[in-house]
Amino acid sequence: MKLADSVLAGDRLALARLLSYVENDTAEGRAALDSLFPHTGRSHLVGVTGAPGTGKSSLVNRLAYVFRHPPGGASPRRVAVVAVDPSSPFTGGAILGDRIRMRDLAGDPGVFIRSMAARGSLGGLAGATAGLVQVFDAAGYDLVFIETVGVGQGEVDIARLAHTTLVVEAPNLGDEIQAIKAGILEIADILVVNKADLPGVENTERALRSMLDLSQPSPRSMVHHKASLSPPASLIGQPGWVPPIQRTISTEAVGIEELAALIDRHRDYLGESGNWQRRERLRLESELEMLLREALVSRWRISISESQYQAVLGRLVERRISPRQAVECLVDGRVLRDT
Amino acid sequence: MKLADSVLAGDRLALARLLSYVENDTAEGRAALDSLFPHTGRSHLVGVTGAPGTGKSSLVNRLAYVFRHPPGGASPRRVAVVAVDPSSPFTGGAILGDRIRMRDLAGDPGVFIRSMAARGSLGGLAGATAGLVQVFDAAGYDLVFIETVGVGQGEVDIARLAHTTLVVEAPNLGDEIQAIKAGILEIADILVVNKADLPGVENTERALRSMLDLSQPSPRSMVHHKASLSPPASLIGQPGWVPPIQRTISTEAVGIEELAALIDRHRDYLGESGNWQRRERLRLESELEMLLREALVSRWRISISESQYQAVLGRLVERRISPRQAVECLVDGRVLRDT
Repeated sequence: MKLADSVLAGDRLALARLLSYVENDTAEGRAALDSLFPHTGRSHLVGVTGAPGTGKSSLVNRLAYVFRHPPGGASPRRVAVVAVDPSSPFTGGAILGDRIRMRDLAGDPGVFIRSMAARGSLGGLAGATAGLVQVFDAAGYDLVFIETVGVGQGEVDIARLAHTTLVVEAPNLGDEIQAIKAGILEIADILVVNKADLPGVENTERALRSMLDLSQPSPRSMVHHKASLSPPASLIGQPGWVPPIQRTISTEAVGIEELAALIDRHRDYLGESGNWQRRERLRLESELEMLLREALVSRWRISISESQYQAVLGRLVERRISPRQAVECLVDGRVLRDT
Repeated sequence: MKLADSVLAGDRLALARLLSYVENDTAEGRAALDSLFPHTGRSHLVGVTGAPGTGKSSLVNRLAYVFRHPPGGASPRRVAVVAVDPSSPFTGGAILGDRIRMRDLAGDPGVFIRSMAARGSLGGLAGATAGLVQVFDAAGYDLVFIETVGVGQGEVDIARLAHTTLVVEAPNLGDEIQAIKAGILEIADILVVNKADLPGVENTERALRSMLDLSQPSPRSMVHHKASLSPPASLIGQPGWVPPIQRTISTEAVGIEELAALIDRHRDYLGESGNWQRRERLRLESELEMLLREALVSRWRISISESQYQAVLGRLVERRISPRQAVECLVDGRVLRDT
């Protein structure tokens, strides 16, 4: 319990150590997570996602700076960033990223930025991300940004860990990206058009607005979603909240204070509408499902011998059984039948 | 069995119907896949992946055209394309995509293009993709392109379904994309710099070449990989094969015949080096693992009652148990302990 207590007491070195334990899924990390969990639930968790090239990292940097130096004499808030970075270890992408980030925020003890390489299984990654977020939450960070580089299902999964999700766009990223936007738009609470000094910003904003109109759930579809047992968080209607579109130029700090205010406004909206509790429940349910997935696979691995597995794989490679039949053999213990 | 037989006999309508069954994971689709599986293993499966905006779709279009109209009087080959498209259903992205594709290849019975929306679980998507590929393989298509839009773990998983993987780049997509490349580069058998008429193509090619040098496994690391029980396909050394870099301008059909020749050359390399069998085994092992993951989760879902699940979730939401403890309750049937 010592490590967890040190983290609760504000020990930054202990925090860094625990983050590594959690990322590497050590026994000490798991025990600390268990004892820290009752102390979580106070941070505002903000997901930031979008296509590559939209400038998410510098945007998050700027947001962190604004929350540390709020306009109008408000008190600064503590900010953590979990950046999920899919670059390969051999390029040192994550390390370089941290170095670039540090310039603005160097030496500020109220900011903690943690990059995580997106290697290994996606389930494992999402689980580790959730763990890092819990550590920051328990350690008293007011805001935790969860930044994901990419546009796939993994990003949607990670976005489900957040209370408020920002989807970042930029002008002129090509038609393919326009298509990708559509899928990810449904999870957006706030839309950001970054690099708003580039030509084409009006077109981007117009396209976003029309897609937004299409994706707003109709009253009827909302009733439908409420009636289902476990609707995905992205499909939960938010009556009274229309995702705003904010233009920013993160390199010049334009629009960042306005964006920070929108993040606060969405938190207030969630609280006042009673949606905070709903989000919190859906958030934890998503997290539980991700961990379940991992646990089921790892427990199954232990339950089967390598020779059993290789025997089934061998028959599959010889095309004597189909992949589905191989799964039946391995999961249900069915007797191998030759065709 | 009737549907499978019609597909084997070359009935295009039956093929289209079966593809839908497989995509929707119906009982009829699963049965047909079982009976078709012994007829698979003849197609050359070519994965095409890379960041958004690199022009993968038009590149695949052009490649299909070249394989249908080969230079030098060679006989045309039958080509199928499975395009995994992450756009949302409400935008009609996939449909529009198909329409654009059809212009070049319209009316050619030797080409079949199937788009699949990347909704739902990632495991489910990869499983469905694998099923579609099997159908085309059994139906006698010589080449099956598996095209994925995106840059995440899901794309790497899908790339593992292929014998030959093309990673497509384009000049000047920004630093973030450079970082992403590194992670995905390890799965590349052939690198394509598309949009090679854009400025910056030399820089892109140079960066690729230096990353490629870094990612080539050293003789020592290859021995290590060979010694491990189940190395990921992406880390398998290919002695005698250095991933070539091919420049293309798909909008003007530049470099496409050369790229098609490289695809054939990699197939020949796999055959002559004995790596085809190794790839085939790894391919089927990846597919098996994806299906296992899905099967374990769906079987677990059936095994637990909704009230049990909700009781555990309720304690989690109240923060009386941690997510990890909730998983233990649900998977191992541990008694709920209040802290």
